[in-house]
Amino acid sequence: MGRHIMVELYGCDTGRINDLEGIRDKLTEAARRTGATIVGEVFHKFAPQGVSGTVVIAESHLAIHTWPELGYCALDLYTCGDEVDPWLGFHYLADELKASRYYAREIKRGIHEEKELDDDPHFVIRPISTTSSAA
Amino acid sequence: MGRHIMVELYGCDTGRINDLEGIRDKLTEAARRTGATIVGEVFHKFAPQGVSGTVVIAESHLAIHTWPELGYCALDLYTCGDEVDPWLGFHYLADELKASRYYAREIKRGIHEEKELDDDPHFVIRPISTTSSAA
Repeated sequence: MGRHIMVELYGCDTGRINDLEGIRDKLTEAARRTGATIVGEVFHKFAPQGVSGTVVIAESHLAIHTWPELGYCALDLYTCGDEVDPWLGFHYLADELKASRYYAREIKRGIHEEKELDDDPHFVIRPISTTSSAA
Repeated sequence: MGRHIMVELYGCDTGRINDLEGIRDKLTEAARRTGATIVGEVFHKFAPQGVSGTVVIAESHLAIHTWPELGYCALDLYTCGDEVDPWLGFHYLADELKASRYYAREIKRGIHEEKELDDDPHFVIRPISTTSSAA
């Protein structure tokens, strides 16, 4: 149902990742490059430094949090559907923010089968109630 | 540096997860319950159904995407710092949205040591360039 790319970007350009308007432009451009449709956005500049922002897309969201003092950004690109490719947004941002290294994980979101979970020791599914099923 | 709880909620109340204002109220209340400081938010209602939204907090973000037709919500609670607890927001939302089951993963965000990565076959770190280091 969806692909969530969770990225840590290291060695980024301090000035670029502390620039609210620049980050807004780049995250929205990254969303476009994935092939997504933007439906909303919100960005915030922290004092003394750092920027956070999210772009809500028809296909889920992109989010970024920057630590200029560390040259580090936490980036999420979560898209649903076969017509978008979150990696296109990732490569654009890694390049634009001048990251020297990255650490990326692609995680599948959506409806998980119990069988699939049993095969992966990292995953666990828990019933909230064994006696009721809402909706 | 941060804790990212990635959650799939199943068996949710169809009416509640298709209600834009209700979802906005609950996600912002969930952010408060984690102990976070809200700095921005954006929500969107889809036609014919579904709601997406994010709350940007001083400690990172919360995000939700709902599929009323499936009773399913994808939820992210990403917080930084020792004074917030993303699980408090999770429990509140699972209860308020009447989820019957959940599937949750807590993922550590931030600065990863190469040594740590080598120990975990799920993680990979890649240099973008071996000859330059930006910033």
